[in-house]
Amino acid sequence: MIDDLIERMKKGDKRAVARLITLVENDEEKAKEIIRKIYPMTGNAYIVGVTGPPGAGKSTLLDKLIKEARKEGLVVGVIAVDPTSPFTGGALLGDRIRMQRHSTDPGVFIRSMATRGSLGGLAKATGDAIKVLDAYGCDVIFVETVGVGQIEVDIVKTADTVVLVTVPGLGDDVQAIKAGLMEIADIFVVNKADREGTEATIFELELTLDLEADKWRERGWRPPIVETVATTGKGIGELWEAIKRHMEFMKTSGKIEEKRRLRAEEEIKTIVSGWIARRVEDAIKRGELSKVVESVVRRETDPYSAADLITRTLLEVV
Amino acid sequence: MIDDLIERMKKGDKRAVARLITLVENDEEKAKEIIRKIYPMTGNAYIVGVTGPPGAGKSTLLDKLIKEARKEGLVVGVIAVDPTSPFTGGALLGDRIRMQRHSTDPGVFIRSMATRGSLGGLAKATGDAIKVLDAYGCDVIFVETVGVGQIEVDIVKTADTVVLVTVPGLGDDVQAIKAGLMEIADIFVVNKADREGTEATIFELELTLDLEADKWRERGWRPPIVETVATTGKGIGELWEAIKRHMEFMKTSGKIEEKRRLRAEEEIKTIVSGWIARRVEDAIKRGELSKVVESVVRRETDPYSAADLITRTLLEVV
Repeated sequence: MIDDLIERMKKGDKRAVARLITLVENDEEKAKEIIRKIYPMTGNAYIVGVTGPPGAGKSTLLDKLIKEARKEGLVVGVIAVDPTSPFTGGALLGDRIRMQRHSTDPGVFIRSMATRGSLGGLAKATGDAIKVLDAYGCDVIFVETVGVGQIEVDIVKTADTVVLVTVPGLGDDVQAIKAGLMEIADIFVVNKADREGTEATIFELELTLDLEADKWRERGWRPPIVETVATTGKGIGELWEAIKRHMEFMKTSGKIEEKRRLRAEEEIKTIVSGWIARRVEDAIKRGELSKVVESVVRRETDPYSAADLITRTLLEVV
Repeated sequence: MIDDLIERMKKGDKRAVARLITLVENDEEKAKEIIRKIYPMTGNAYIVGVTGPPGAGKSTLLDKLIKEARKEGLVVGVIAVDPTSPFTGGALLGDRIRMQRHSTDPGVFIRSMATRGSLGGLAKATGDAIKVLDAYGCDVIFVETVGVGQIEVDIVKTADTVVLVTVPGLGDDVQAIKAGLMEIADIFVVNKADREGTEATIFELELTLDLEADKWRERGWRPPIVETVATTGKGIGELWEAIKRHMEFMKTSGKIEEKRRLRAEEEIKTIVSGWIARRVEDAIKRGELSKVVESVVRRETDPYSAADLITRTLLEVV
């Protein structure tokens, strides 16, 4: 069945692509098989991460960026990583539905990832979906995350180009960005730039970038700040140009190789620790570790000593 | 040094408590030693998780709940799990500073956890901080998380009582809550209940609870819905009573034992997979796995096969 799906995918069957992503998302064993089989066909897509707080207009921006990329004849993939949050899920749906109008275009594939569950599960599923879209023939793959959790940050940071979207008037938030995403952003977007406070937001961003001047100089790339109004399309051309400039920089500087190495490392780590975690979980479920758990509950041993014992056992047995 | 800190903690020295938490947060080896030594002194604290979207007023609610608990002479600990998000960090600070006014009260210990980094790092650090506060003598420990990420949900779900705070007018969000946190909530709070839309929010919650009636009956506890206006203190007494009623239910029904077992299991899993992940990371850093990573980058092997090889190697070597 998998071979058949892969054959159909090669012929441009989008339903086969959708089915393959569903399989890698939900079935560990099938994911292994699918990735092993399609992996040699990957490595051509350029990954653009787009992140920012809820309500920053990322989906609308993406909707417009898809158009720009399509004008150049590029095959576009979009993976919208659904926030794992039960709180923000609903609000995003509208925008994403709008984006779906591209889905009749054979050169555009849009997919929402909603995997919950185990830590790292979402990152792994996203990485695998990227590979399917890469094998399908996407030239550029946008990965959209709501930058509200470490998992989402972890996902976006392995993209070749990271676009950080903010909006005016978030108050303390530019300050807050400094602490975290500033370091991983390659392009800053101030969306809804027709709003009051746009200048102040840009000023603050510039200031922060100035303070970090040494870092950018060392990196050879100072993140540009692009003003957009996604709803009207203002600034979208400029943003697309900035993305292409950074793409070019990544390729000519050889930094794209570093990113790909980082991506491979992160992926391997995620898979290995996921497997080990599952093995422990299974052992607990099967009752093999219930004695150890019980002694922790009874305070006869502490969790670290218990973990030590389990790690040793795990590493011995197999 | 650790023994000295523990001695000082036993005598009620809050600075020693703060120092111990910093150590468990930042130093894996010291965490192991500290937890091993204090673990026999733990098991008395009752853990109340408080979660909800940013801006729901959780910190203000907690501020008032601390007062209620103090009236009864209880020693109170608060662990505010800082969102791992670079976006929401700033906004919460103000509320948390307000809460800090309790910090001159020797019967209240408030701590923000801001550990970033590895998946599971925050959960582990929070679990360890809970143990330090438990050993210190806290009767009740509130763990506040912004329910916007899987990590935060994972943290809060192991609490003995889970309080889910929402506010009127979040629109789709009650719908969204259904999908996730509904199952783990023991008490619902509609805060800012002087706002328009309060009745509709409560109605929706009631409806959702009615639909799940079988589940609550089986559990023996139907989550009450408490209306509060945290800023004025309205409904706080009722909320505190609801928490105490649930506490009583957990103890008399024996369900608290189940929760403690779950907590021990989750902790052990987190520690073990964290160790394994670090081991892989170290091996990559030391260059031992660079050949494997390189072959993945060059597409000679795929990430799953690489992970397989590494897992086997790990499990053989020790």
